[in-house]
Amino acid sequence: MGRLTGKRVLVTQSTDYMGPAITALFKEEGADVTDVPGIVPFGSEFENYVTNLTDFDVIIANLAHDPCNASVAKIQNEDWHNLFDTMVHPLMALVRHFAPKMAAQGHGKIIAVTSAAPLKGLPGSTAYCAARGAQNAFIKAAGLEFAPQNLQINAIAQNYVSNPVYYPDALVETERFQKHLSRNVPIGRVARAEEQAEFALFLASDHSDFFVGQIFPFSGGWAVNA
Amino acid sequence: MGRLTGKRVLVTQSTDYMGPAITALFKEEGADVTDVPGIVPFGSEFENYVTNLTDFDVIIANLAHDPCNASVAKIQNEDWHNLFDTMVHPLMALVRHFAPKMAAQGHGKIIAVTSAAPLKGLPGSTAYCAARGAQNAFIKAAGLEFAPQNLQINAIAQNYVSNPVYYPDALVETERFQKHLSRNVPIGRVARAEEQAEFALFLASDHSDFFVGQIFPFSGGWAVNA
Amino acid sequence: MGRLTGKRVLVTQSTDYMGPAITALFKEEGADVTDVPGIVPFGSEFENYVTNLTDFDVIIANLAHDPCNASVAKIQNEDWHNLFDTMVHPLMALVRHFAPKMAAQGHGKIIAVTSAAPLKGLPGSTAYCAARGAQNAFIKAAGLEFAPQNLQINAIAQNYVSNPVYYPDALVETERFQKHLSRNVPIGRVARAEEQAEFALFLASDHSDFFVGQIFPFSGGWAVNA
Amino acid sequence: MGRLTGKRVLVTQSTDYMGPAITALFKEEGADVTDVPGIVPFGSEFENYVTNLTDFDVIIANLAHDPCNASVAKIQNEDWHNLFDTMVHPLMALVRHFAPKMAAQGHGKIIAVTSAAPLKGLPGSTAYCAARGAQNAFIKAAGLEFAPQNLQINAIAQNYVSNPVYYPDALVETERFQKHLSRNVPIGRVARAEEQAEFALFLASDHSDFFVGQIFPFSGGWAVNA
Repeated sequence: MGRLTGKRVLVTQSTDYMGPAITALFKEEGADVTDVPGIVPFGSEFENYVTNLTDFDVIIANLAHDPCNASVAKIQNEDWHNLFDTMVHPLMALVRHFAPKMAAQGHGKIIAVTSAAPLKGLPGSTAYCAARGAQNAFIKAAGLEFAPQNLQINAIAQNYVSNPVYYPDALVETERFQKHLSRNVPIGRVARAEEQAEFALFLASDHSDFFVGQIFPFSGGWAVNA
Repeated sequence: MGRLTGKRVLVTQSTDYMGPAITALFKEEGADVTDVPGIVPFGSEFENYVTNLTDFDVIIANLAHDPCNASVAKIQNEDWHNLFDTMVHPLMALVRHFAPKMAAQGHGKIIAVTSAAPLKGLPGSTAYCAARGAQNAFIKAAGLEFAPQNLQINAIAQNYVSNPVYYPDALVETERFQKHLSRNVPIGRVARAEEQAEFALFLASDHSDFFVGQIFPFSGGWAVNA
Repeated sequence: MGRLTGKRVLVTQSTDYMGPAITALFKEEGADVTDVPGIVPFGSEFENYVTNLTDFDVIIANLAHDPCNASVAKIQNEDWHNLFDTMVHPLMALVRHFAPKMAAQGHGKIIAVTSAAPLKGLPGSTAYCAARGAQNAFIKAAGLEFAPQNLQINAIAQNYVSNPVYYPDALVETERFQKHLSRNVPIGRVARAEEQAEFALFLASDHSDFFVGQIFPFSGGWAVNA
Repeated sequence: MGRLTGKRVLVTQSTDYMGPAITALFKEEGADVTDVPGIVPFGSEFENYVTNLTDFDVIIANLAHDPCNASVAKIQNEDWHNLFDTMVHPLMALVRHFAPKMAAQGHGKIIAVTSAAPLKGLPGSTAYCAARGAQNAFIKAAGLEFAPQNLQINAIAQNYVSNPVYYPDALVETERFQKHLSRNVPIGRVARAEEQAEFALFLASDHSDFFVGQIFPFSGGWAVNA
């Protein structure tokens, strides 16, 4: 018996960010995972996207984009909009589409994989902070809105979790990055993606029913407020 | 001698939200106020907007829109985008345009008038929370980015401040709203817009130089965290 | 194989607050639980208290006292000191005693069961807020201090969890309390102590290694910031 | 006409911490300042302390003690208790004594000068964080309790403000400390005590009436959450 046996789970952007680790762990633990690779579209295309996606117990709203790091003076409009178009607007569309259905079925979990960056404020990543901040704020409010209907919506606001785009091994192993870690991340290391997936599993399980609208920092002590 | 004598101040959307109260107080206190009514445009029109707007000591980034209150299930795409188009994207454009100029001149203040809603999470106002949350996150990160250049960027995250759109007198005076106030707002009343303008004045003055990247709740105790 | 097989766990004040639920679940899941009833003493008596308490993987610093609710004007010195003497000073003594030993053994977890009250600020419970606030602040700082030594110290800042002192069934079942819940607690119910124990179990397990110095609100959406 | 003309102000521990700067500025601005040097006692001596202290509009609860920095393993019981005895218990006694009198007179302000340390969590200063955290939590809750009675209680949670005990000039001027500042404090400098006094003046003035129960970080961007 796996820890998620019988759970029907949707993982979006399944080959990016935390998608692979969550998909792998959840399958291993008996979940019936529908893993959909690629950007979640917004607007008219969204209806096609969800056409055959029905009957889930858990949605992993895993939405990611290159952080487009740049000083404020050099933010490109295109980068700015790409961040909102891929991470913010589709998150609303996903919650708007699935949350009422889950409420109607009497239970459900939505777990957004977001970022701890807006909790601290990250110079040089202000566009990313804005978009991830919009996600966190939306999840907090939506989590409180659906709380009375036995639907739990929360976010994992992570940083310093291994993944090929933000923290590839080749970067993490450099002396410079190790020094950065020891100065900035109390725990002094980058998390394995599997560790993040284990927390996602806790939130996806029936054991997390009392958490709603929470933005959980997951960053080795880098950000401890939310 | 007024408290802002000699300060050149830009107030955006000057006839909306906190625009009238801030403009009035700042003028009374000797500031040289350029008050520009109307939505701040984004994209190619932004360049026209700022063509003749130069040499400011203080920017009041006062950006507001009807909150488009609706349950998550009923969020309209058009409303969602209007909130981001009028409040979020122009805020970035304003900071991207003016902050480097202020840094070059060796000093400056940018004060964004935002909302406390995303600090609490407000069911029924999730779209508004998302947009205001993006603003707050952007200001926090941008404030930290420009901190070393003697430029102070902060936000007033308000709620329960009198204004004709959100809290018109006719609404505030009802028995139902008074009961709501006594239950939800520790101070038990709505602030006059002039009180908010006084805090904006403090932030616009040289006395606030040690505050950067802060999101100040201004809500009579409704939200006390940021 | 239980989920905590092989873990040596100390539960303080084991017959109070979350002690019974955590002890029961942890034993059921294979932990070797040393459950010590009664107040944890401070000062010279502390040494006796810990004499035979050695070799733990997990410490559940479960410290509780009647909240001594009273308006500020009516706080009794004796109540004030009792709160600090039973909840704050012993927490420091426990961490000061056990954390260095755990660091020396190369791993360990300390989980403080505290309160969400100081996160919100609770009129009429200001003494309790002060004492629980001291606990949360100590855990945050101590968690960051021990983070580099593979020791994870965190707190569960709870409210609205069933227990015979704060939320006895007879109180919870009243119409008045149910109305209070529907107005103040988004999730609209009180948690079973077992739900809290499940989160404590997650924090006690190896799956939580990336969390340090965190104050987790556990309150059904009542407090979502920390 | 000074900015505080007619205000009767009590400043505790007036020759320590922010006492001198606040006393000087407030007198300069026309306040009638009663500045009382020395530790505020707790318990039976407190009654003597306040015997002749009556009729204030503003209380500056300026309570300070050497931070007793030490790793958790080396916290001395005496240091721990000194921190609580000088900063935490007297703060409660001051608020318990003066707040009801101010409420009875129909208005008042209490401004606690605390610390931003507990907002971040400071390894090596865990005892100080615990005591300052108790202060912040008490002020938040007491501020909300007295909010409906036109009494505003708030805290300035500061760090990196010049003062002879924590940040003497001789320390601040060292190359090592300057490097520390540039790495850890976004604004890159230590505040003059006068800047802090200006914010205290704002909070002491009638312009701050809508702020209650707030913990204002004042730390040059070091801590931006509360």
